[in-house]
Amino acid sequence: MSDTDHHAAATPQARAAALRARYGADPALDVAWNATVAGLLAHRTVRAFRPDPLPAGTLETLVAAAQSAASSSNLQTWSVVAVEDPAAKARLSEVARGQRHVAEAPLVLVWLADLSRLEALGRDRAKATDGLDYLEMLMVGVVDAALAAQNATVALESLGLGTVYIGALRNDPEAVAELLGLPPNVLAVFGLCVGHPDPARPAAVKPRLPQDVVLHRGRYEPAQAGRAVAAYDAAMRDFQAGQGMPQAGWSDAALDRVRGPGSLSGRDRLREILERRGFGLK
Amino acid sequence: MSDTDHHAAATPQARAAALRARYGADPALDVAWNATVAGLLAHRTVRAFRPDPLPAGTLETLVAAAQSAASSSNLQTWSVVAVEDPAAKARLSEVARGQRHVAEAPLVLVWLADLSRLEALGRDRAKATDGLDYLEMLMVGVVDAALAAQNATVALESLGLGTVYIGALRNDPEAVAELLGLPPNVLAVFGLCVGHPDPARPAAVKPRLPQDVVLHRGRYEPAQAGRAVAAYDAAMRDFQAGQGMPQAGWSDAALDRVRGPGSLSGRDRLREILERRGFGLK
Repeated sequence: MSDTDHHAAATPQARAAALRARYGADPALDVAWNATVAGLLAHRTVRAFRPDPLPAGTLETLVAAAQSAASSSNLQTWSVVAVEDPAAKARLSEVARGQRHVAEAPLVLVWLADLSRLEALGRDRAKATDGLDYLEMLMVGVVDAALAAQNATVALESLGLGTVYIGALRNDPEAVAELLGLPPNVLAVFGLCVGHPDPARPAAVKPRLPQDVVLHRGRYEPAQAGRAVAAYDAAMRDFQAGQGMPQAGWSDAALDRVRGPGSLSGRDRLREILERRGFGLK
Repeated sequence: MSDTDHHAAATPQARAAALRARYGADPALDVAWNATVAGLLAHRTVRAFRPDPLPAGTLETLVAAAQSAASSSNLQTWSVVAVEDPAAKARLSEVARGQRHVAEAPLVLVWLADLSRLEALGRDRAKATDGLDYLEMLMVGVVDAALAAQNATVALESLGLGTVYIGALRNDPEAVAELLGLPPNVLAVFGLCVGHPDPARPAAVKPRLPQDVVLHRGRYEPAQAGRAVAAYDAAMRDFQAGQGMPQAGWSDAALDRVRGPGSLSGRDRLREILERRGFGLK
């Protein structure tokens, strides 16, 4: 496949433009600038894909990148299922409340917190694996899977491909497990759609909260957040206007998302589902 | 600060060498190759740092990269505390059972799953945030924090800096919370040490399991793992020999790590600690 690096050019003008897009403002930030940093800052969520198949070698490349991420105690408690079958993608799209890009992307990766590999190894060797029955080990699997997936995303974007994470697979982990044949002690943490971005429906960089809201120096300072949220709401409304979206801002929509169990799209059942799927969660 | 991209050169010879190091074998893999992919595959865990301070702008750069990662429903349920104070780093090193690099690195980042920002916003606006009390929302915070941290790691490595994740902060989340002034509903998911790698004590790329153990095509195939583990154990023994480490292989050490609650370094108490720290985990 092509070895071109599709990352943005690393000029000073590009740096200012990238920061403006990322923060919806001109932050006075002294950031280093090279092709990798430019590529990271240029990330955008792609939901509109061309139907073309992916270049040969895409899967091998993204898995090698994913495996190169750190893994807690090198336990490698993650796996990934590559889904290309149209009927399977359609079923995953249903789980994700009909998100069309899940059916339309040529490749959907399902990232798994996988404690079953160690469990099976213990069984083969007649060794106890009771440590797997603790919430800590679910945490290890989820973090391992997330670090791996993000490395894959960075690699894919450097190859000119686009991605979108699909947390909505957690709306119904049992349906995903049935579709993909997942054994107990394996959770589909999220999906990742992969494809060529459709140039006719381009995606834009979404602004984030100002740095001083998420970055704490030395100690956590909760008082910082209040001040900045109004400015960020305004930046999000500008972004939404530019995208032809309703100008909802950020804070009202975010609060609506967490107002109660009924706003979690079925994910209020996650604990009970995990217990049924073999996770001890002690 | 310097804008040089320190990623490995993207020659065909470098590709073969990178795959050999990553898998401890010569896998027949058709991977795409550019500076970004080369940089990702060259990742190594750095535990030996020069004492020099970091270049100006390092923190701003890594946070901009971190904020550029995807965030579930754009809720941005993560924060990071930058710890540079020697006494605070020494205390974090104690929590991590005396890992010296935690005290020695010029910067230790503590990555937080942060549900308190939305909780505080809801309180200010007199809006219910009962959805935060579910295990799902801890998952959202942990995934958000991990994606952000991995982007930061990629950016730091492109600048020639080295990192090591410190999961051992979960040995005692309450000590970390007290040290950093974390409010309820905030968990220190892991630390990340950052510094200039010490060239006198170079780190090596650690081999990972063969691709077909972690990659499943269409459906999960548990039968794949057994075959490959013996070969991987041999690759790890070769790696360990080259590093002057005990040749323990992989599978025995991994099983020992999960044999029971006593092998979790105190993290068998994570659920109880999270509940005390305000997480509903419903």
